[in-house]
Parts: sequence; C-alpha cells; structure tokens
Amino acid sequence: MIFAVMFSAINVIAQRPPVISSPDVQADNSIIFRYFSRNAKEVKISGEFLKEPITLKKDTSGIWSVTVPPVTPDIYPYNFTVDGVGVADPNNTHIFANERFKRSIVEVKGNKPLVHSLQNVPHGKVIYQYYDSKALITTRQLLVYTPPNFDASGKTKYPVLYLIHGGSDTEETWTKVGKANLIADNLIALGKAKPMIIVMPYGNVRPAPMPDFTKDVVNDVIPFIESNYPVKSGSENRAVAGFSVGGGQTLNIGLTNTDKFGYICSYAPYTATEEFKKNFTDWSPDAEKINKQVKLFTISVGTDDFLYESVKQNIAMFNEKKIKVNPLIVSGGHTWMNCKLFLAMSLQEIFK
Amino acid sequence: MIFAVMFSAINVIAQRPPVISSPDVQADNSIIFRYFSRNAKEVKISGEFLKEPITLKKDTSGIWSVTVPPVTPDIYPYNFTVDGVGVADPNNTHIFANERFKRSIVEVKGNKPLVHSLQNVPHGKVIYQYYDSKALITTRQLLVYTPPNFDASGKTKYPVLYLIHGGSDTEETWTKVGKANLIADNLIALGKAKPMIIVMPYGNVRPAPMPDFTKDVVNDVIPFIESNYPVKSGSENRAVAGFSVGGGQTLNIGLTNTDKFGYICSYAPYTATEEFKKNFTDWSPDAEKINKQVKLFTISVGTDDFLYESVKQNIAMFNEKKIKVNPLIVSGGHTWMNCKLFLAMSLQEIFK
Repeated sequence: MIFAVMFSAINVIAQRPPVISSPDVQADNSIIFRYFSRNAKEVKISGEFLKEPITLKKDTSGIWSVTVPPVTPDIYPYNFTVDGVGVADPNNTHIFANERFKRSIVEVKGNKPLVHSLQNVPHGKVIYQYYDSKALITTRQLLVYTPPNFDASGKTKYPVLYLIHGGSDTEETWTKVGKANLIADNLIALGKAKPMIIVMPYGNVRPAPMPDFTKDVVNDVIPFIESNYPVKSGSENRAVAGFSVGGGQTLNIGLTNTDKFGYICSYAPYTATEEFKKNFTDWSPDAEKINKQVKLFTISVGTDDFLYESVKQNIAMFNEKKIKVNPLIVSGGHTWMNCKLFLAMSLQEIFK
Repeated sequence: MIFAVMFSAINVIAQRPPVISSPDVQADNSIIFRYFSRNAKEVKISGEFLKEPITLKKDTSGIWSVTVPPVTPDIYPYNFTVDGVGVADPNNTHIFANERFKRSIVEVKGNKPLVHSLQNVPHGKVIYQYYDSKALITTRQLLVYTPPNFDASGKTKYPVLYLIHGGSDTEETWTKVGKANLIADNLIALGKAKPMIIVMPYGNVRPAPMPDFTKDVVNDVIPFIESNYPVKSGSENRAVAGFSVGGGQTLNIGLTNTDKFGYICSYAPYTATEEFKKNFTDWSPDAEKINKQVKLFTISVGTDDFLYESVKQNIAMFNEKKIKVNPLIVSGGHTWMNCKLFLAMSLQEIFK
C-alpha cells in the first residue's frame, strides 16, 4: 500500500540521465570516457595523458564515448568540451580543486602500487580547521595531515612541513590532486620518510599583495600550528615547499626566513611577482650564513614545463649568489604528476 | 635580467580567460552571475532560488551576466546551462559534492548571521580518515567532526551522531553543502546543543544491496569510532540522522537497532528500497519496547518535497504500528536548504 504511493518518487528519480560509468579504467590501462547528451553536436576530451583533444562518438541512446589507448599509471586531470564548452565529467566525483577551472581527475592504478596509491598501510588523518589570520584580517581554513598512529597526548613531538598549492588551486589541491597524505602514509610505512605533520594553508591572497601571505604563514599559521599540535622546535624541524605560484611563495617565505626553515623545496616556481622582485633584485645575501642555516634547498622542474627557462635562470641566480641549491630536473611539464614526484623526493630528504 | 626571461611565463598565464567574479552577491541580497564565452549562443542559469531558468546577456568582451533579484539569505545550489550543456560555475570554487551532477553553491549571507554561517565562535575540526569496512570488503573514507575545545586526552567523553547524506551525494556533502560543522559550532556556542562528535560516513553502496550499508555502520563504523575517539557508551549517547536515501537508511539502521540508537532523525526519507520493503512490509514491532528505547524519533519533510506524500504515508504507517514519531512539516522542497534547518532542529533535541 505504502509502496504504491512511492511510485511518483521512483518516477522522478527515473527521469535522471542513465547511470553511466566514466571514467572506466580497463585492465590494460586504457580508459573509456563516456558522456550523456542527446543534443550535443560535438564532444571532445582533453587530458594530460593526451597530446591533443580527441572526439567522442555518440550511440543511438545519446551516450558519447571514446577509448583512450593505454596510458602510464598515474593521476591525470581531464575535461570534456561539449560544443565548445569545457565541463568536468558529470559522472566522476573526483574534481580538481581549483578556483578558475572545473576539471576531473582520473587515477590509472596499474598493477603495482605507486607512491601515491591508497595502499594497505596505516593511514594518517587530514584535518580541516579554521584559524584567525591577523595578517589578512580574516578567518581562513587550512588542512593539517597528522601521520599514522599520531600521538595526541603531546609526549611525541613532530617536525612540520608547510606545503603550498599552485596559483589558482585551493588548500585542498595537495590532498585531492597531489595525494600528499597518501604519499606520506606510504613513505612513512616504508621507513623512507620521518613521521611528520604537513600543514596545507590557503595561499591565494587577493587583492592583497603577496608579502601578506608570507606574513600570514610566519606570524599566524606557524604560531597557530605550534600552539595546537605537538611540534618539535627549531628550524631543523621546519620545512616549506610549494608548486608554481606556491613555489615562488616558497622561495620568498623560505629565503627571507632562513632562521625559521631548515628545508626549502620549490617546485616549478613562478617568480614574476612584485614580492620576488622586491626580495631578490638587489639581493646581496650572506651566502655562508644561509648555507649553514638551510640544510636543504631544492628547486625542481620538468624540461617541458613552460617555466623551465625561467627556473633555470633562477637556479643560475642562486648559484651566482653562492647560495647552495640542489636542482632536480626531470622530464614532463607543469603538472601535478610531477608535483607528486617532487613531493615524494622531498619527503625522503627532509628532517634527516 | 632574470625577469625578462619570465615574460614567456607571464604570457602563458595571460592567455587565460579574464578574471571575472561569479557569483557576486550584492548588499541587497541580489546576485550577479557571470560566465565567459565568446562562442556560446545561449547561457542560462538554474538555481534553487529561481522558479525557472533565466537567460544571461553577453557583452562585447564575451562576458555573459545576469542580476537575480534579492533572495532570502541561505546557501543555494545552481548551475549554468551553456548551449544546452549543464555546467558548474567555472569561477566559483564551491562545488556541490555529488556523484551524478556538477553544480555550484552560492552563500547569501544577509545582514544577520544564520545558524549555518561562519561566525566568530570557537570552531571544531573536520577530520578525513580511512577505515576498513569488513562488511563491504574495502577501505573507505569517512568524516568526523570534533567539537570546539575537543579534549583528545580521553578524559572527556562525547555522544555521537551518525549523519548520512542523500542518494548521489558523498561523505563531504553534509559539510560542504549542509555546513553541519558550522551549525554544530554555532549551536554549541549558544549552549543550545551539547558538544558532540558527528560522524559522516559514505553511504552509497553499489552494486551491493542496501542492507550492507546497515552492516557497515553497525559492525564497522561504530566500532572504529568507539575505539578511536573518546565516546560515551549506551544508546542514549548515539543518534542516527540522514537525508533522502540517507533518510531511508536512517529508518532502516535506527529502527532495526533500537538497542543502539536512542535518537532517530529522518529527513525527507526515500524508502522505496528492497531493504525498506524487507524490514517494514510485514513489520510487527514491539511498539512499547521501541518507544521506551528510542528517546526521540523524528521525520521531517517540506510540503513541496516530491516525497511529501510518501513521507506522510510513512508517518501514518508508524502511527498505525503505535511507534511514537514526531513529524516536522515545513515549507519548501527536497532541498539542502531544508536539510540545514532539519539538522539544526535535531542538534538542539538530541543527547538531552
């Protein structure tokens, strides 16, 4: 009786588009992408596993599809372009956390676990919380990774990595796209990384100028973390890392505070900012002092990165100023695939 | 010198679409929506603040815009439809966490703080973590809200609300759209809700049948939480609540485990499931026993909800079986605006 009445509800739900599976990763690492539209004239897919967009084909039920040949196991951003309009994959829950575009991400697992895969190891937690930023006169959210078997009693103290996202990314991009938490879980389980806290602040400061973010990190974020988590003191227990605009922020934050950061890891830094110009144009550093304070200063970049030439110039500048820098030059572009690699390298080098 | 080289990088970044602000909420609670496309022929907006979609107008630079007249302060889902293709707002970071559609959300704050607003009160944390589900033979993520000034030492113990999302939502929907954490922060600050832990599991179990989720909650999630958090024992310290499909799951989980849940709060339940049929078709409950065990059993729904008639039938069925149920009938539809209201009501009633 009661179920007859519910028929209207079922009908409403039945009017939804058909349940289709996309992306559908196959055993051979090929990927089937599907998109439902009866009315679209053209559906294409662009992905960081493709050199150029490819066109999907429509079947009689309105489901467009294409099979992308086997790709190297990794996590890739992609989007559809439907009659010229870029859209995230409506059937994929996993969205690239970003303020300027809406792309989806697809994980191609392959048959051996990668450093960023969800593996059968003890897992840490990712904590979302608010803090008051006096520098920015607002309440902001940040993410805090605590390692597996984290001792909340305060008896065990941990070193801290401050990890900054790219230009239009958000405080969630390092976990949602960069899998920083899983990379840390896996490397800690292997004994290759020290148990550490990773703090992921929100780095976009608009319209305020960049230096305000340096102030926010140094005067607000660090004291907030150190008064709320069991943290080891001293610059040898503090690292800063970041990608793209966040890589530029890393250089500014780290190199203007070498008494506070023993490790500075800059990934494909974008440095054409007022703050960088102000800090480094007429910079005459006490290189000997900085080289003593900073235990590791790395700059990483891919040879296909659109910033490759400018990053090389950065490295040359630091060499010229006698600042010891370890370059890591790999293949690939300005991508989060490379970001994961760079982070995995850094986690094995810091706090040791 | 170094900056000349960076010009190529600046140019690449300059090729992005213009930075436009959307949604742009005005002081009078009207909202300007903007979308950039030089090629689109038609751009419309659909939102839960609109009776029907309205069309945006394009300026000479390719920016489409429309001003929606003042709306009641709340948080609303919306999306653009560009030449027939539904898309989230590319310039809005806030996405409706869902597996089947990509919508954006806009917060209209108004001039007095609402129960779900970010207010100047102590804030709890939202913790993302993995647990092993034996019922579902997999590792799954859940979210845990811990209240402001949470005592991690184990000395203070807390009651726990298990809170389940709607049908195609995710474990993030109750915080990202439902603002469960902020509602709890605000009501705890006012002394209107008890400090509590809120656990938000991932409720979608496909292709496995519904009863597996009940097993997951009872046999995996609850023991996991109770062995990892300082939790008060006894059914009087355990509540279950949920919306839509999650409201149906709430009825199944709660009413088949009245020894475990002292509070059962079902919001606009969708109940046309095999599990509901199996559990309740020939149900001959010991009403007196259940009414003693369950301190509060509420069913909430809006009069414009497409499930309104079926929910009324549900309430009638429970009345007929002499199960004490408190209906909460409000205006509005099957919406997350109503969800926030229902949760705010429940938080003031449970654990008292």
